[in-house]
Amino acid sequence: MEVGNRYVTLKNQLERDEEPKETDFEFKTSTISLAPSNDDEVIVQNLYVSIDPYQINRMKKQSSSHKAINFAFALSPGQAIDAYGVGRVVASTNSKFEKDDLVAGLLGWEEYSSIQGEFKLSFLRKLETTMDLPLSHQVGVLGLSGLTAYGGFYNVGRPKKGDKVFVSAASGSVGNLVGQYAKLSGCYVVGSAGNKQKVEMLRDKLGFDDAFNYKDEPDLTSALQRYFPDGIDIYFDNVGSEMLETAIVNMNTFGRVVVCGVMSEYTDETKRAAPNMMDVIYKRLSIQGFLAADHMKDYAEFTSVTSDYIRNAKLHVLEDISVGLESIPSAFVGIFRGDNIGKKMVQIV
Amino acid sequence: MEVGNRYVTLKNQLERDEEPKETDFEFKTSTISLAPSNDDEVIVQNLYVSIDPYQINRMKKQSSSHKAINFAFALSPGQAIDAYGVGRVVASTNSKFEKDDLVAGLLGWEEYSSIQGEFKLSFLRKLETTMDLPLSHQVGVLGLSGLTAYGGFYNVGRPKKGDKVFVSAASGSVGNLVGQYAKLSGCYVVGSAGNKQKVEMLRDKLGFDDAFNYKDEPDLTSALQRYFPDGIDIYFDNVGSEMLETAIVNMNTFGRVVVCGVMSEYTDETKRAAPNMMDVIYKRLSIQGFLAADHMKDYAEFTSVTSDYIRNAKLHVLEDISVGLESIPSAFVGIFRGDNIGKKMVQIV
Repeated sequence: MEVGNRYVTLKNQLERDEEPKETDFEFKTSTISLAPSNDDEVIVQNLYVSIDPYQINRMKKQSSSHKAINFAFALSPGQAIDAYGVGRVVASTNSKFEKDDLVAGLLGWEEYSSIQGEFKLSFLRKLETTMDLPLSHQVGVLGLSGLTAYGGFYNVGRPKKGDKVFVSAASGSVGNLVGQYAKLSGCYVVGSAGNKQKVEMLRDKLGFDDAFNYKDEPDLTSALQRYFPDGIDIYFDNVGSEMLETAIVNMNTFGRVVVCGVMSEYTDETKRAAPNMMDVIYKRLSIQGFLAADHMKDYAEFTSVTSDYIRNAKLHVLEDISVGLESIPSAFVGIFRGDNIGKKMVQIV
Repeated sequence: MEVGNRYVTLKNQLERDEEPKETDFEFKTSTISLAPSNDDEVIVQNLYVSIDPYQINRMKKQSSSHKAINFAFALSPGQAIDAYGVGRVVASTNSKFEKDDLVAGLLGWEEYSSIQGEFKLSFLRKLETTMDLPLSHQVGVLGLSGLTAYGGFYNVGRPKKGDKVFVSAASGSVGNLVGQYAKLSGCYVVGSAGNKQKVEMLRDKLGFDDAFNYKDEPDLTSALQRYFPDGIDIYFDNVGSEMLETAIVNMNTFGRVVVCGVMSEYTDETKRAAPNMMDVIYKRLSIQGFLAADHMKDYAEFTSVTSDYIRNAKLHVLEDISVGLESIPSAFVGIFRGDNIGKKMVQIV
């Protein structure tokens, strides 16, 4: 049986230094067979899909150095846009999945996704039908955003009790979890965010030791000196640019910079950080990039630990859910204005 | 018995963005007692002292972030300048050293040095009197420059056989050794240097797979693409600035940038590198600063391995020796013009 499959696509590639607009996207409808035509194919009806800032890098005219990278390959206008999400299996010729299974993996900004090929199949995970936590959690806190926070903070940041941790974009999908993991690990944590409401939430609801609105700080160096009189041991960087430069000035010896995202450079490449490499040498800093995919081996540990934290109310789950496939463009555009608090996702069905 | 102790000192602090000039230095004479007046004091007559680019950072007006760093604290005009070197013990009240011992450690740009205090004493090493290699080797290839190359390349760079290694300032005291260690470890090695003579030496004498004069390359990106068609796995950075930016564009996934020095930024802070952090994330690069002092635990292994390489003619030793305390200012100024090939040092006696 074939059905219509409505999906979001790029109307045009974005310019390198441009914020995305809703008019950069359009909706199209393809047809999809609900009976798999290939071996090892899983047809999924998408329930929730993730809205992540990194997608903008796939929508831009690519720089040559990124063309060779497997992850986040460039998107062409007209093409469906794959994205992390959860869904329900409609039909499967893969022995690991059967009709009505709930799954999480690389689905898409579309009503139905056909999952085939080694890479996407290796990423597809069957969810417990007995799970006691909301399905939406699988998109964020127990999905790739959560694994990004967990793998980045623990494996790359290598925290020790008492470490001073700075998180930028701390109310975002990853940042809020990094801060909460850090508190649960006995660290001192300060986060930066872009408005008063977010700052208050970090301090009052999530238990950060402190938080500040970077837009209210004319001098970031003195702000960081004020919040970190004893220096920074781990900087979990979601924004890049001036914040990264300034954090490096305030790092302690043997400090770790965990480079997760460079939000402020995504839409303005002129904002690139020029860190003081003398600091990097004399303080023996490490600046390390990573992707959640590198930490898949820790998936079971991560979900077990994190689910327990959630059940015991030790970790707050922040979700920001829009409803309907039609809301995807505005949801995506909104994260670049800082509209979201916590994990941004769209409920399709 | 007191004797005169002639030493080199700063006439004035250097401006932040200034190359050093011989007239920035002057000679003074203090007196030193050749009979130790304190417990745990070792008086050393200096034979060879090391001339290193990093010293310039101690001679400049300091930025606030560097003031807190133990290593390479700021130098004041009139003060003696400590520097790595080898010498002969004149007198000692420390039980580990006695008259006529040959020693290596933090001595100074002066005729005699009084070594006291935990830090300097912990650094002082008694040399074998039976050693079959020239004493000057202890200043460079078997001293801190060698340990910098060895610890940085092996511990920070973590090379695997077949890795593609790029070394900048490759004819310098550290760079030439990194390239040679890399070849001895089965890596493909290309070095950059600042003139034709150095490039030929790297290729023809030291066995680098290739080398180039960066001044002849109008487009460093295409140069690195030409020399590294399969990308760079390890970049051993001695220069910073545009070379660092460009290397990062050409790094392979999971590549390591070993940040040893930023020669081109020492005298011009406007030349700071602004690396593309998207590359750092998607290629999961690590950028790691280090100091030789962090690798003292490997000193015995390093000297044993390296001495064997030298004895078996597997490693060429490049030394550039000026004679006489009076030559220190011109030797130091010269390294910023790229005058030296290999380890620059001054023979005092």
